[in-house]
Amino acid sequence: MQRIFEVDPWHLISHQLDDKSKLLQESLTSIGNGYMGMRGMFAEDYSGTTHAGIYIGGVWFPDRTVVGWWKNGYPEYFGKVINAVNFAKVNFWLNDEKVDLAKNQISDFTLDLDMQHGELRRQFTVTKGTARVQITITRFVSIVQKELFVLHYNFRNLGQAPVKLQIDSALDGNVYNQDANYHEQFWQVKSRQQSMTAGLLVAKTKPNPFATPRYTTAMHMTNATTLTPQATPETNQQVVNRFNGELAVGATTDFEKRVIVTTSRDYADQQAVIAAAKKISQQVAQQTYTELETAQQQAWTVRWQQADIKINGDTAAQQGIRFNLFQLFSTYYGEDNRLNIGPKGFTGEKYGGATYWDTEAFALPLYLAVAPTTVSEHLLEYRYNQLPGAVHNAQAQGLQGALFPMVTFNGIESHNEWEITFEEIHRNGTIAYAIYNYTNYTGDETYLREKGIDVLVGIARFWADRVHFSQRKQQYMIHGVTGPNEYENNVNNNWYTNLLARWTLQYTLASLPKTTTAKQTKLAVSTAEKAQWQDIIDHMYLPEDEKLGIFEQQDTYLDKDIQPVTAIPAAQRPINQHWSWDKILRSPYIKQADVLQGIWYFIDQFSPAVKQRNFDFYEPLTVHESSLSPSVHAILAADLHYEAKAVEMYQRTARLDLDNYNNDTNDGLHITSMTGSWLAIVQGFAGMRVRDGQLHFAPFLPQDWQSYQFQINFRGHLLNIEVTKTGTTVNLQSGSALTIDLDGQQLELNSGKPFVD
Amino acid sequence: MQRIFEVDPWHLISHQLDDKSKLLQESLTSIGNGYMGMRGMFAEDYSGTTHAGIYIGGVWFPDRTVVGWWKNGYPEYFGKVINAVNFAKVNFWLNDEKVDLAKNQISDFTLDLDMQHGELRRQFTVTKGTARVQITITRFVSIVQKELFVLHYNFRNLGQAPVKLQIDSALDGNVYNQDANYHEQFWQVKSRQQSMTAGLLVAKTKPNPFATPRYTTAMHMTNATTLTPQATPETNQQVVNRFNGELAVGATTDFEKRVIVTTSRDYADQQAVIAAAKKISQQVAQQTYTELETAQQQAWTVRWQQADIKINGDTAAQQGIRFNLFQLFSTYYGEDNRLNIGPKGFTGEKYGGATYWDTEAFALPLYLAVAPTTVSEHLLEYRYNQLPGAVHNAQAQGLQGALFPMVTFNGIESHNEWEITFEEIHRNGTIAYAIYNYTNYTGDETYLREKGIDVLVGIARFWADRVHFSQRKQQYMIHGVTGPNEYENNVNNNWYTNLLARWTLQYTLASLPKTTTAKQTKLAVSTAEKAQWQDIIDHMYLPEDEKLGIFEQQDTYLDKDIQPVTAIPAAQRPINQHWSWDKILRSPYIKQADVLQGIWYFIDQFSPAVKQRNFDFYEPLTVHESSLSPSVHAILAADLHYEAKAVEMYQRTARLDLDNYNNDTNDGLHITSMTGSWLAIVQGFAGMRVRDGQLHFAPFLPQDWQSYQFQINFRGHLLNIEVTKTGTTVNLQSGSALTIDLDGQQLELNSGKPFVD
Repeated sequence: MQRIFEVDPWHLISHQLDDKSKLLQESLTSIGNGYMGMRGMFAEDYSGTTHAGIYIGGVWFPDRTVVGWWKNGYPEYFGKVINAVNFAKVNFWLNDEKVDLAKNQISDFTLDLDMQHGELRRQFTVTKGTARVQITITRFVSIVQKELFVLHYNFRNLGQAPVKLQIDSALDGNVYNQDANYHEQFWQVKSRQQSMTAGLLVAKTKPNPFATPRYTTAMHMTNATTLTPQATPETNQQVVNRFNGELAVGATTDFEKRVIVTTSRDYADQQAVIAAAKKISQQVAQQTYTELETAQQQAWTVRWQQADIKINGDTAAQQGIRFNLFQLFSTYYGEDNRLNIGPKGFTGEKYGGATYWDTEAFALPLYLAVAPTTVSEHLLEYRYNQLPGAVHNAQAQGLQGALFPMVTFNGIESHNEWEITFEEIHRNGTIAYAIYNYTNYTGDETYLREKGIDVLVGIARFWADRVHFSQRKQQYMIHGVTGPNEYENNVNNNWYTNLLARWTLQYTLASLPKTTTAKQTKLAVSTAEKAQWQDIIDHMYLPEDEKLGIFEQQDTYLDKDIQPVTAIPAAQRPINQHWSWDKILRSPYIKQADVLQGIWYFIDQFSPAVKQRNFDFYEPLTVHESSLSPSVHAILAADLHYEAKAVEMYQRTARLDLDNYNNDTNDGLHITSMTGSWLAIVQGFAGMRVRDGQLHFAPFLPQDWQSYQFQINFRGHLLNIEVTKTGTTVNLQSGSALTIDLDGQQLELNSGKPFVD
Repeated sequence: MQRIFEVDPWHLISHQLDDKSKLLQESLTSIGNGYMGMRGMFAEDYSGTTHAGIYIGGVWFPDRTVVGWWKNGYPEYFGKVINAVNFAKVNFWLNDEKVDLAKNQISDFTLDLDMQHGELRRQFTVTKGTARVQITITRFVSIVQKELFVLHYNFRNLGQAPVKLQIDSALDGNVYNQDANYHEQFWQVKSRQQSMTAGLLVAKTKPNPFATPRYTTAMHMTNATTLTPQATPETNQQVVNRFNGELAVGATTDFEKRVIVTTSRDYADQQAVIAAAKKISQQVAQQTYTELETAQQQAWTVRWQQADIKINGDTAAQQGIRFNLFQLFSTYYGEDNRLNIGPKGFTGEKYGGATYWDTEAFALPLYLAVAPTTVSEHLLEYRYNQLPGAVHNAQAQGLQGALFPMVTFNGIESHNEWEITFEEIHRNGTIAYAIYNYTNYTGDETYLREKGIDVLVGIARFWADRVHFSQRKQQYMIHGVTGPNEYENNVNNNWYTNLLARWTLQYTLASLPKTTTAKQTKLAVSTAEKAQWQDIIDHMYLPEDEKLGIFEQQDTYLDKDIQPVTAIPAAQRPINQHWSWDKILRSPYIKQADVLQGIWYFIDQFSPAVKQRNFDFYEPLTVHESSLSPSVHAILAADLHYEAKAVEMYQRTARLDLDNYNNDTNDGLHITSMTGSWLAIVQGFAGMRVRDGQLHFAPFLPQDWQSYQFQINFRGHLLNIEVTKTGTTVNLQSGSALTIDLDGQQLELNSGKPFVD
């Protein structure tokens, strides 16, 4: 655990500038707007440890898969998240000396991520000889105008002599990816234009041999200041505007940089990309800095009004949940149904890809409850639109139906390790489950009937082809899979995978009759096919251990050397940073919920005794080294009234990055697991369930908290739920009357009349 | 099946020049001398399909491992076999037109690999306008002077007018690897020198970030001809000597190129490498071409006198076995104990690496019998010398003892897929078994006591740490392995692996008391350690199926959808070229002997009924898509008196490359499986065994053969065994009197007195 920011309900504030924690600081102070985003690196060159990462949603590069021995069906490339042209760059000189915070004498350093208003601020004083200048910097990526990035500087001369000031504002195409294989570059600069105060740089991703697009991006900057613009020399792969002047004793001066970023994702060709950048730049020029900033702050305020969770009595927890929601919304707010929720969002390059099953498993439930329904629809449509890619992926493995990718930008699998892509097919089950989840939550079967059914039939066909019938056991089996616990690979009969496969077939068979005749004709599921699905449903093998009364994670899990996590020396954790992959694979240690993930999905279908036996057996074997792990355990622990365990798990998920629990936040944030703390509170502490179309709550209050409060959008009703030491208040904020179940009691809610338990 | 050369007992002869089979032709006409070798590509530029591959033993490049998600313990690099500077290049022009056999009108084409004499010859007539010139070319890599390559041309004017002739002889550093990831080059040209008739090119492998050497090679060429030398322009990365002149009607002229290749493997620095190349070049200059060629032919004749197998009545089989021995000896003849037998020898780049377990499993038995004992000793010492690397490999996985690499040049693992390197640990068992095999065959325990025991203890310690005790089964298990059948990955309790692990512990415990006190002190195997080993031996889990009475390949093999290979449509074979890797892994199909490999190693320890049940079960499930597979099956089939099956398997191994059985010989030959046909005849048809120090034979003659005859070196005795339709003749060629067992009868042999059965 490593906590570098002060505990505060709305801010991440630090007065420390420490090279050793610089990467962590940068990750935690990332900002974004769904369209683009960046790490909290300094805008100026920093000669210490830094990772200047700026990313644009849906802009990527297919990096050829390289293996010793090629096998059929291997994905051809790894989908790399690539570092964009550095459009945030601003360097400045005091009395002709370049400022570099790794070298200069600075004081009064403050870094402040204002989550309430979506801004990152920095202030510090540089002392250089006789010069003493205080610099205050604000940056934001606009959630009002997606293409807009704004950087504002104020320089104040605190010294006893005038100070010569020079500022270089740049668009820098000379960028590298941290995860490049051979230090190669992914961008080619295609065009540069500049005036004294503005500049344009156009770059295109380098050629690749695959049937994937190359992306063109245009960055148009305008710079405004009272300093004097200077001619700048040609610089390779950069566009620079230079300004200088003198700062009198006690005087201040401002500098403002605005950048408009457009891409070929939205415009047809290079000319159109450039024209759009310039046009939007002109539009934005109509507004003052204050107007832009105010609009940004107001937009964030609206988001918070809908989604905020208030925790009284535990500021660290309060800060954690707000940080999670802030970063999640910075990554995705559903505006563009071609985008999704990348595992690192706009905070790093690790893992590659834009989309994992994390979205359906962990993010959808949150967006269903705290954002407009269109956001969830967009998430589902993303998969529907990528169905051709999923069919392609199945065919690449010689299988029928649709296999949604483990990692993708466009529907085609873009991860390149076979044990992931070939084997972690359980993702297909979750993508089917998301359709159920959406339908169950919204009560609206339109999506299911019109689009979801196509996805379900594709997945069902995949499962029906992927199982085999074991003569020895006289049951259907699924060999060669990797379950959610990625600390095992290529196992047979992962209980979770088999369960989801069977469930998908059941749900698809049950849903088909709800669709139109035209749809059924198009899908052409034959009687024989349905009979085969039913046979698989009836004879699916689900490993269980009778003696222990538990589901067995996979065929030979219980043959392992079963020792609880407490047997691992503390110095060897997290094991993925200390043990060889080989040792991890053979160990009994579970990375994230596996059997328990299945129990969570169908939490009402298992008896408390079954849930308890499985939780009691598996949780002590779980190292929670996936950021997706603690939330599921928090929910199940709460369900089992293991309140202390639920709180422990909540704490781990809520401040996973803030407290750098797994010692890997330097690389970027765990965006898709940001939903975990919300899930832990809402599904865990508050026990929210939707049963037969009715909302249920069974809340408890963590011992150290005074109260917590959250809001839920449910079928056109907006509910505010407050849980205090004295009881639960449910307030129907808007929408018609609604009957809910609170702790087993039916309660009718009317707008404006809070029910107090 | 694809047969492009005529059936002939000593030659590969073809009169066809077909672009579609050019790569296959090149692979099959490869030549080498253990130190270096080359594919049978034309020396001149060929604009059709070609792979100009020249390789130098032990010269390689560590290519960084690239994966999406890095895990601890992954090997850092893939050891690439790199294409050397092309020192064979000779282009020629007739009347100023460059000759290119892909474009020119040619006639009377003959390509002839003379296996008896170790030479590749080519003859053809080029017609260009009025010019008609017959060209005869001979090339060989000397087995007398390892650094020497010789290329001899004769031009004969068959036309009615004089012909202008120009020859460019080059050393070309501008080479690419077929398996380069990004078309990058691995050589940097460091120095070039040239006179009118000689040239020198020095190249060094490019830098790499690992603790592996960079190699410097010097190529020194001398060219001799009656044509007139010409000044040549500077050419990038090349050294060229040019000659021209006129060829009168009916006249002939010769051209000869000699190249000396030296490397930093043998000399300390670049200066020494260059000096050695020049010095050897001067020494070789003392000999005429005829003298060099005669010495080459005589040296090959001596090899054949010791190793030839004669088959009467089946010329295809005769050609097959000689081709195998020729290519095997071209790859390795034991001169340098730092080298080993690469899977493609000097015939291609695929697979990388210099050393696989193939050497110990398949090559050692042959070299023990047909080459001086020092050759086998060098093979064993190779591993002993690499023991530190094996300890490193084990440590990288967090394990004790020694893990010999799956693929290596220097002892450090140099393959980069975890399912190979982490899991195919059975290789360790074979490396232990080779020590037993050598000791059992030679009857000499010196190596075992002095060096082999160090290897055995290292491997035993690895096994003892790698097993775990299953509480559920109350037995020791080995999880997470890949057996010899690479069509399964990451399985549990592979019977073969568990068997070898147990055996290694047994053999090591039994061997320790034979060593000196000093050795025992050094090895420091404690009483507790020995007790632990004994406990593992006593409680090792070996999966069996009682109902079928067979050993189970791995824990859940029999849960698969078991269907015989005959159920696979012919168009889908070989499956590794038609099925996705995923489908292969889940299938019941076996790439090569797995359970049966274990039965082969310990063939006398299983009852005929056990051998038969396992063979009858597993052989029909085996696709033999490893070139190492048929030989083991041939031996076991012969042991079970399945003579037709034994012959079928022999045919597959003997002409695997000659008939391109697995449709993959374009990439290069299957060098390590070249021993298969020898094993099939000697251990299979002739039933050779060494039991308690005595040589046993139980021969049969394949129905279609008239006879076969081979020689065996056994403990200082040279035996010639001839099996004919009328019986078996065993002739003690040299050595003292010896008693052997022939078909169960004890027979005393005396030199010069053949025993006829």
